[in-house]
Amino acid sequence: MDAITDYETSSGMSKATILAARDALLAQKSLTFSVLDESAVPEMGVSPFIRRDDGLYIYTSHLAGHVQALLVQKCASFIITLDEAVTANIWARVRLKCTGAVSEVPRDDPDFSGLCDDFAAAHGNTMQLIRDFTDFHMLRITPQSGVLVLGFAKAFLVKGASFEIVAHLSRG
Amino acid sequence: MDAITDYETSSGMSKATILAARDALLAQKSLTFSVLDESAVPEMGVSPFIRRDDGLYIYTSHLAGHVQALLVQKCASFIITLDEAVTANIWARVRLKCTGAVSEVPRDDPDFSGLCDDFAAAHGNTMQLIRDFTDFHMLRITPQSGVLVLGFAKAFLVKGASFEIVAHLSRG
Repeated sequence: MDAITDYETSSGMSKATILAARDALLAQKSLTFSVLDESAVPEMGVSPFIRRDDGLYIYTSHLAGHVQALLVQKCASFIITLDEAVTANIWARVRLKCTGAVSEVPRDDPDFSGLCDDFAAAHGNTMQLIRDFTDFHMLRITPQSGVLVLGFAKAFLVKGASFEIVAHLSRG
Repeated sequence: MDAITDYETSSGMSKATILAARDALLAQKSLTFSVLDESAVPEMGVSPFIRRDDGLYIYTSHLAGHVQALLVQKCASFIITLDEAVTANIWARVRLKCTGAVSEVPRDDPDFSGLCDDFAAAHGNTMQLIRDFTDFHMLRITPQSGVLVLGFAKAFLVKGASFEIVAHLSRG
């Protein structure tokens, strides 16, 4: 049995409960990202994603300005939220927020086709329509550090592509 | 009867249908915002909101870095999405994205108390607990321009605090 870690004592939540809540977020279908562009406000986008051990992947078109910004900046913030309908108190909507490096998986990369297949399996037939559209890019988001919010005074620092729980944030 | 506008002809959707979808988004409880800070990636936050004729309001604490950034930058991007559970195709999640100016309604402003009451009515008793917390700020987001996405090739340019539909964007 694992030792009780500091974040369990501090938050009053068990590691198993925290990890289950984190993984429920990572089982959502889409994320919202935010990226710098040349204006005073960031660009935002919403995109379906899949998860692999090395990060999250999105497949999206450079016809959107926010995707052009991702390709240029190579870093972004992203957030995954549980639906409002399953949110007990809207003031503490369950969410996972993270920064990440963005890199493209080129179409001639050996992984490209398998990633497309994984998108089709996760998100339906639309992928078969768009996989050959060359304005679309397969982008890997390599998570760096972030925050998992599970409730009032239940915020946790997360790290890396495994979203390892590293600390309880007493101020949320 | 109103004349058929260009965006109706171009999109194949009636004005009434588009406005109903827009207003369903504005009846959601929370928004996600994004704001510049001093790093290479934007800050993001999730917050309950209420709507008034002059814009959207959030009530949130400066203990969060992204709220400090809102107070400094005085502009942000925000996005409201329908839940995944009611999303027919995740590749076209229904959403409203907009830029906005951010201004604070001070605690001694005649509107402050009524805004708090509106938050309590919309979002429950938590507001009564936090309305006297002085780390919280009542922020007005004055919408400028944005995009309403209702499906594939069903994206519309919106403008101002009334989120008036001004054009169909043929590239989404």
